[in-house]
Amino acid sequence: MAKPTPLSGFPELLPAQRYVEQQVIATLAHTFELHGFANIETRAVEPLDQLLRKGDTSKEVYVLRRLQAAEDGSASDRDKGIGLHFDLTVPFARFVLENAGKLEFPFRRYQIQKVWRGERPQEGRFREFTQADIDIVGRDTLPFHHDVEVARVMLEALGKLAHPDSIGLPGFRLQVNNRKLIQGFYAGLGVSGDGIDEVMRLVDKLDKLPADKVRELLLAEAGVSEEQADKALALATIKAVDDSFVQRVRDLGVSHELLDEGLDELATLVRACAPLATDRARIEADLSIARGLDYYTGTVFETRLDGYESLGSICSGGRYDALASDGRTTYPGVGISLGLSRLLVTLVQRGALTADRSVPSVVLVAVTDEESRADADEIATALRARAISCEVAPTAAKFGKQIRHAERRGIPYVWFRQADGTSEVKDIRSGNQVAADPATWQPPTEDLRPQVITIDEGESK
Amino acid sequence: MAKPTPLSGFPELLPAQRYVEQQVIATLAHTFELHGFANIETRAVEPLDQLLRKGDTSKEVYVLRRLQAAEDGSASDRDKGIGLHFDLTVPFARFVLENAGKLEFPFRRYQIQKVWRGERPQEGRFREFTQADIDIVGRDTLPFHHDVEVARVMLEALGKLAHPDSIGLPGFRLQVNNRKLIQGFYAGLGVSGDGIDEVMRLVDKLDKLPADKVRELLLAEAGVSEEQADKALALATIKAVDDSFVQRVRDLGVSHELLDEGLDELATLVRACAPLATDRARIEADLSIARGLDYYTGTVFETRLDGYESLGSICSGGRYDALASDGRTTYPGVGISLGLSRLLVTLVQRGALTADRSVPSVVLVAVTDEESRADADEIATALRARAISCEVAPTAAKFGKQIRHAERRGIPYVWFRQADGTSEVKDIRSGNQVAADPATWQPPTEDLRPQVITIDEGESK
Repeated sequence: MAKPTPLSGFPELLPAQRYVEQQVIATLAHTFELHGFANIETRAVEPLDQLLRKGDTSKEVYVLRRLQAAEDGSASDRDKGIGLHFDLTVPFARFVLENAGKLEFPFRRYQIQKVWRGERPQEGRFREFTQADIDIVGRDTLPFHHDVEVARVMLEALGKLAHPDSIGLPGFRLQVNNRKLIQGFYAGLGVSGDGIDEVMRLVDKLDKLPADKVRELLLAEAGVSEEQADKALALATIKAVDDSFVQRVRDLGVSHELLDEGLDELATLVRACAPLATDRARIEADLSIARGLDYYTGTVFETRLDGYESLGSICSGGRYDALASDGRTTYPGVGISLGLSRLLVTLVQRGALTADRSVPSVVLVAVTDEESRADADEIATALRARAISCEVAPTAAKFGKQIRHAERRGIPYVWFRQADGTSEVKDIRSGNQVAADPATWQPPTEDLRPQVITIDEGESK
Repeated sequence: MAKPTPLSGFPELLPAQRYVEQQVIATLAHTFELHGFANIETRAVEPLDQLLRKGDTSKEVYVLRRLQAAEDGSASDRDKGIGLHFDLTVPFARFVLENAGKLEFPFRRYQIQKVWRGERPQEGRFREFTQADIDIVGRDTLPFHHDVEVARVMLEALGKLAHPDSIGLPGFRLQVNNRKLIQGFYAGLGVSGDGIDEVMRLVDKLDKLPADKVRELLLAEAGVSEEQADKALALATIKAVDDSFVQRVRDLGVSHELLDEGLDELATLVRACAPLATDRARIEADLSIARGLDYYTGTVFETRLDGYESLGSICSGGRYDALASDGRTTYPGVGISLGLSRLLVTLVQRGALTADRSVPSVVLVAVTDEESRADADEIATALRARAISCEVAPTAAKFGKQIRHAERRGIPYVWFRQADGTSEVKDIRSGNQVAADPATWQPPTEDLRPQVITIDEGESK
């Protein structure tokens, strides 16, 4: 077969890059589990009728067909009717309904899986990508404090990823808003019924269009008055890292019961998250955030990565009053979804992130000749018994060649067994070589696992 | 939406069951990394022409099509031409060719991913399932000792899974053979050319057909003599846990250079693996194993799970002289693939395997009233700072109800903050309640994480 070429939109990582992804996933999973979130994995496929309920995403669905079925034209309805999931929310809602009798509510889960969308690939947008979701779902009711909880958990998780002593990702800004606040404000302005959603949809375009243009659209398409348009735009300019936004909204002179509820919820959330914020993990009430046409009913989240604002939101979510319903029981939920590939693949492709070695091995055990390979294996076994990853040289080449074998992989130590049965270990970075016993030798902690390297404007941490 | 029903062949696990799967994956990954295997993940899709190179698996391939492309009939060639991978070997071979310039050889990797096959679901056979593969691939050459290495690594990994102090899976038997041994034996018998593959294919049916029937087929379809058929069947009856099989093969009075090579390799492999064997992790030379029509050229592996022999092999692989080739360079490989879902989903569905709680939480922090929720959050934060997973009660219900909330999830401890600011923690299994400080309290190690429970004939370990 000729040399294969990559498939656009289906990114793959080299081993050192994949190591970074594994570390990011482990950090997320550890944080989510500390907060009592259980992991689940759902199947990759869902019935097409479920995937197509959200109208405008239908174009993105990959439909599956068994090759044999395609050939003989006898595809069963079931085979015709499945496609790859395009997010983790649709499958989770289905999982909750299917297993409601076996789950305890409120049910909190995290899910880190690949999803697929057939859209046009571009930077940060892939056809196959990994998402990391947390959600809490209740039966009939779900107290608001769970909105605060998911925000705090994701803020903590992202904060760990951005911490220079951990992965060292760029800093980020978690932007929060509340649909009740926006909708109550528009209602208080006198915008009625369907007009509210239309105003919200148009104001949401502020990240792509200038305010003037949005104002024109508000007048032309939403049929609101100039004063209503100006106030709606004024609301969307309000940002604050504390609850000072409440007074600024009040100052716009609009009142409505739903607005009060939204202001109260958003202020509670911002106050509860503020103590977790750091320079690299910030939270901000941003009253322009609406999350487009998604079916959120209260809290909404978006997240911007410092220096990578063009990627759009890397972590989004919110509150659904009806995440799922079987007609008799309704399951409200609140959740947030991190676009792991959007974040990581972009950083990796720009060369900003990798690991200092391509293998887990701390040590390469050199082989003097093929007859003594068993001795080298024994040394490796002794090191592994103490959780030190190692590999034995593939051939009894000259030691210089064996050292280069280690060097090319970033393995820091080469182990030499002497003819008398004693051993020496060489740190090939410094050249230091010392006597060592495989039953007791211990590398420095930082050498035990590959280290993540972040490259920022030519500097590595 | 009405209550959804499961899709046959697409198994999903409940949280406690998924926890077991996560532990199994962590055990495998840890073992593979100790031996220097780096992790990679390949995309879920491959070009159809690559997936269809192995003739008879073509029926099982799921073809992908973008819904929009399907609707407007304008599918691009690229969209038409991709399908879901049905194993991890085809994608790995492609990955090696695509990235050959960026990889160091011999390249050792592990890969734990879902694969898809559109075949008829039955026990242990799914349409979506997870495989865990290790492979070592060389450029141009790959010494035989790597065959020994992958056998030892998988034996060690499976041995950990079967250990009662670890996951406690049933014991297993790793069966090894060598294609050179079989082919050399048949050649030494005077079977020629194409006949050798045909004899091998028919003898491989011994696990499904009685020996008499296979003998008939050998005479009728492979056109061998009665003596050749009898000797081929006699070879296939030889099994040994040590290298005593060598003499038994010699006693059949057949000689051939390739047979000698195969006997030598297999004896070396069995001797090197024997020291790792335990009661629950056994290795055996089984000269009936051939691995059907796959393109193995030397060592072959299969694995039977004790008490679940009807599942067939749960872990198979072998040596390929040409895992991949780009026409100029050939990449020989040796690897072994564990059918994780075949193993785990079967045990879980039969009720033989679960975990003792459905959430990671060690502690439920009780809430006295909604006004003091922040105090409960603070206690939870202090516990999490010391890596103790916990969750805060969702409502300030009566304490009895909060305790039942913990009980239903299997959370072992409930934490109560008193009005004076001190705390007590109750082990709800024993009823013991003691004074405790969130900055210092430590649960027993075995309570820190959920425990895997194996149920064998009504007994739990």
